[in-house]
Amino acid sequence: MPGFSARPPAIASLLVDDAVVGVTRWDFEPGAATGHHTHGLRYVVVPMTDCSFLIEGPDGESRAFSRAGEVYRREAGVSHNVVNGGEQPMSFIEIEYK
Amino acid sequence: MPGFSARPPAIASLLVDDAVVGVTRWDFEPGAATGHHTHGLRYVVVPMTDCSFLIEGPDGESRAFSRAGEVYRREAGVSHNVVNGGEQPMSFIEIEYK
Repeated sequence: MPGFSARPPAIASLLVDDAVVGVTRWDFEPGAATGHHTHGLRYVVVPMTDCSFLIEGPDGESRAFSRAGEVYRREAGVSHNVVNGGEQPMSFIEIEYK
Repeated sequence: MPGFSARPPAIASLLVDDAVVGVTRWDFEPGAATGHHTHGLRYVVVPMTDCSFLIEGPDGESRAFSRAGEVYRREAGVSHNVVNGGEQPMSFIEIEYK
């Protein structure tokens, strides 16, 4: 379709998967996206680079910026598409608690 | 005491402390150490730099090397002193599960 441009997928690499946690590294080229998903587990995010987040959620778009190492935690139930809204590659590591 | 050289302390920065996790960033100059401690909680380590670990444990010294982003998890009960055994500064983020 002329003018149509789907977002490329972010690359997910499973680092740890045991009885306690699942740890996934996410690497995004500019414009890349995780795809829409709902978190079934609570999680911690460790930005490995500065991250310019474009978040597509149920209530629309929002933007957030986290510097490398600015860790945050979220409860289960978050539903969103996470996009690299910046001009540089970005990466974070997500630790889900089972 | 002539010839005595205590290790400098690693710098601990508390990033998150809530009902679920405690997240601490550890920054080490070469030769810096956490001091001997026993982990009361299970934990995940996210190396933010390449890390040349010198581990002083109950059974003696050992060395380990983790590249930045090489995440690992440990159970509660680990007892050790963690030293930067390399020539460069190193940093990791530790996520303890309450």
